[in-house]
Amino acid sequence: MTTTYDLVVLGGGPGGFDAAVEAAASGLKTALVEAADLGGSCLNHGCIPTKLWLGATSVIEELAAQSKVRVATGQVTVDFAALQSRKDRHIAATRKAMAQRLAQLGVALLPGRGRIAGPKSLEVVGAEGSTTLTFRTLLVATGSRPAAFPGLTPDGARVVDSTGFLALPAMPKSLIVVGGGFIGLEMAQAAHRLGAHITIVDALPRLAGLEDPEVSKALETVFKRQGWDIRLGVKVTSVVTQGESAVLTLQTSAEAAGEELLAECALVAVGRRPNSADLGLESLGVELSGPGYIKTDATLLAAPDVYAVGDVNGRMLLAHAASHQAHYVVQRLLDKAKGAYDSGPVPSILYGSPEVLRVGLMAEEAKADGEAVLVSRAQLIANPIAQAHASTQGFVKCVWRQGRVAGITAVGADVSRMAVAASLIVRAGWTREEAAGFMFPHPTLDESLKAALLADKEAA
Amino acid sequence: MTTTYDLVVLGGGPGGFDAAVEAAASGLKTALVEAADLGGSCLNHGCIPTKLWLGATSVIEELAAQSKVRVATGQVTVDFAALQSRKDRHIAATRKAMAQRLAQLGVALLPGRGRIAGPKSLEVVGAEGSTTLTFRTLLVATGSRPAAFPGLTPDGARVVDSTGFLALPAMPKSLIVVGGGFIGLEMAQAAHRLGAHITIVDALPRLAGLEDPEVSKALETVFKRQGWDIRLGVKVTSVVTQGESAVLTLQTSAEAAGEELLAECALVAVGRRPNSADLGLESLGVELSGPGYIKTDATLLAAPDVYAVGDVNGRMLLAHAASHQAHYVVQRLLDKAKGAYDSGPVPSILYGSPEVLRVGLMAEEAKADGEAVLVSRAQLIANPIAQAHASTQGFVKCVWRQGRVAGITAVGADVSRMAVAASLIVRAGWTREEAAGFMFPHPTLDESLKAALLADKEAA
Repeated sequence: MTTTYDLVVLGGGPGGFDAAVEAAASGLKTALVEAADLGGSCLNHGCIPTKLWLGATSVIEELAAQSKVRVATGQVTVDFAALQSRKDRHIAATRKAMAQRLAQLGVALLPGRGRIAGPKSLEVVGAEGSTTLTFRTLLVATGSRPAAFPGLTPDGARVVDSTGFLALPAMPKSLIVVGGGFIGLEMAQAAHRLGAHITIVDALPRLAGLEDPEVSKALETVFKRQGWDIRLGVKVTSVVTQGESAVLTLQTSAEAAGEELLAECALVAVGRRPNSADLGLESLGVELSGPGYIKTDATLLAAPDVYAVGDVNGRMLLAHAASHQAHYVVQRLLDKAKGAYDSGPVPSILYGSPEVLRVGLMAEEAKADGEAVLVSRAQLIANPIAQAHASTQGFVKCVWRQGRVAGITAVGADVSRMAVAASLIVRAGWTREEAAGFMFPHPTLDESLKAALLADKEAA
Repeated sequence: MTTTYDLVVLGGGPGGFDAAVEAAASGLKTALVEAADLGGSCLNHGCIPTKLWLGATSVIEELAAQSKVRVATGQVTVDFAALQSRKDRHIAATRKAMAQRLAQLGVALLPGRGRIAGPKSLEVVGAEGSTTLTFRTLLVATGSRPAAFPGLTPDGARVVDSTGFLALPAMPKSLIVVGGGFIGLEMAQAAHRLGAHITIVDALPRLAGLEDPEVSKALETVFKRQGWDIRLGVKVTSVVTQGESAVLTLQTSAEAAGEELLAECALVAVGRRPNSADLGLESLGVELSGPGYIKTDATLLAAPDVYAVGDVNGRMLLAHAASHQAHYVVQRLLDKAKGAYDSGPVPSILYGSPEVLRVGLMAEEAKADGEAVLVSRAQLIANPIAQAHASTQGFVKCVWRQGRVAGITAVGADVSRMAVAASLIVRAGWTREEAAGFMFPHPTLDESLKAALLADKEAA
């Protein structure tokens, strides 16, 4: 007789893993199906390895900052091979700990590809054959993968995607990054610290196109000062390996014939695509939209008894958003969450130096529905901790509607430290008076957030 | 005819300055009397210069951490003279900006010593003679100064207090720190990074005696591993300059004859004392307690129309507490604050590496009134950002009463980044469910706070 699982989770990234753990801990009979590695993109070839690179190399950035103000001298060398090996060990240890946690809670972990086999059953094809699971509820948390376009397809030689880049045995001396979004900018920063000359190419007219335009401007200023070659508003015809080089050809425009850029390596970071194909979800009535995002209703249901969380539903491609949605789904299964899913303000962080933090609405978004929007700002240069770290470029900007904070954006060294507080403040919709009455510790960089909240407001 | 000020502020440190700025910006006719330098102890010889030292030298600590895990090699030298000059320039620039702000707002800035001359008048004796001011309200914000005891009195040669230490032209190669509290530990860390061999002596049986005993233990472990000589539970007979050395004599005990410790310099950091003498406050009915703290009622009044804020009232010797009290007093003068002063949870931070954060109640405090107290913990080693910075020692600990968070304590690299969020969470008294439903950004060190909030609870 076959076991019926209360919950079968398809995908062991942040959303799927957290759902499986919470469901099992709450007494639900749970199985987790993972086609590749526990931890998903985030742990294995996304946020975590990138943060390990940035963390290990931040000493280089700090030395540069203190050298610039003539307080420190010296040199620091990061052994890239040692860093890669440390990264790989960390990832392996984390996967092992995750597997142990699942085992401890009695979650059945099935390595293999899952595919719908019937209304309430999933076939899992693994290395050692196939199994069929029956479920009461299915949670699809299959995540996303790097996007590729014609002419912009990583060939795995000198042209790589983020996964390939993180696996490089040596850091190239020159790097072309196609795509000036989060992924491209974080990896470019790590590469820059490790000695690579950086060229960034993007079709958009600004870096970090999802951010406030003032943030894009600030990033561009900092990176240009570091000697990066930044080509914005240009289109790429192709990027290919030629001998020992990656060769990128810019589209011929009215002004210029198709210029060629050469580097030792090219990283294609032009977005991500949902992993929703070949799962047989259509047979359950699941609908896809855009490049394949699973459509979900207000309760994250994609079809009766089928939930979808994380990147694959396209709501917000962030690990913590996936985990938050997963918590909601398990709470629903336990009958503890009654209403529609509410993400609350979702913090988004670009790591590196500078960092970018955004939570809630940006000025343009806030204005979209015709309401009066005010903004207030504080510059980091006035902050003693920014001064202590000789990293004074950047600002905190608050967006106000009807006298309440609706969004907070910041750019500068270490501004991610304000993320949780900013989320709580935006969620609570503080007034200026509430900010004035709250005790921010002194001296902290966080006082820049206080200064921005208390600064004079102006029209956005 | 004499002008009568709505508010005369005695002391231009964080509390006094903020009060003067807010009062003037709100339309009150305001004067500020400062006997020494604008910014008080915090800016001129306290938190700010210490943080400039720690900020400039954090690169040394980061390099040590990455070297230990064999990812980085290199050497960094901080030019102490350059750092001192940068510190002095920063402090001077900040003072200048403060003076400009006062001028802009029309605050009369009077350099000199203030002393009560009558029921509503203050005589200010400055370098160029004396003036008498009349006031409707007086705010005493005269702060505190380093404490000295018989045998433990800085002689300014090889034995210095925190003010003298911050002014040293060169960092000594060996340093005895008398006092294992915040000030001693922060300065010792900066000195250690700059190459000094550290000996710490304290009469208490543990470092950072105001903190959770687990925190003290963690600090001791880290500092001992760094090679510090830590002598706890010992009493000092004397510390004096002898020739080119500071010589500290330990009190003879049952076990040992008075051992002598020698170093190039000794820092006496045995607490602080309020600046409440010679102000003539007694004539207004102001009462003092303990070592001279001004007694205040629930509305921070020390006598009719006389408020006292900051270190001098002894409630909480922290700059941000002074500023918060100052805001309350101005709100009262404007008739906007009706009830008693409520500090809310006061965050306290020890800087360096590790850092210590405390907000709300510690377990022992929470148990004091006989209530059932639970604690939950998360270790930093499980956090990917702690791993990325190769600084994995430390933990976050939550204190629970009646199912709600009553206090948060953390020790470890960069834990101060959780301070504002922890304050908001303790103020709101989150339940475990509220923590589970809140979206913490991933990956951040702050997720250790989430992990601690969600960890299994045990009896304290």
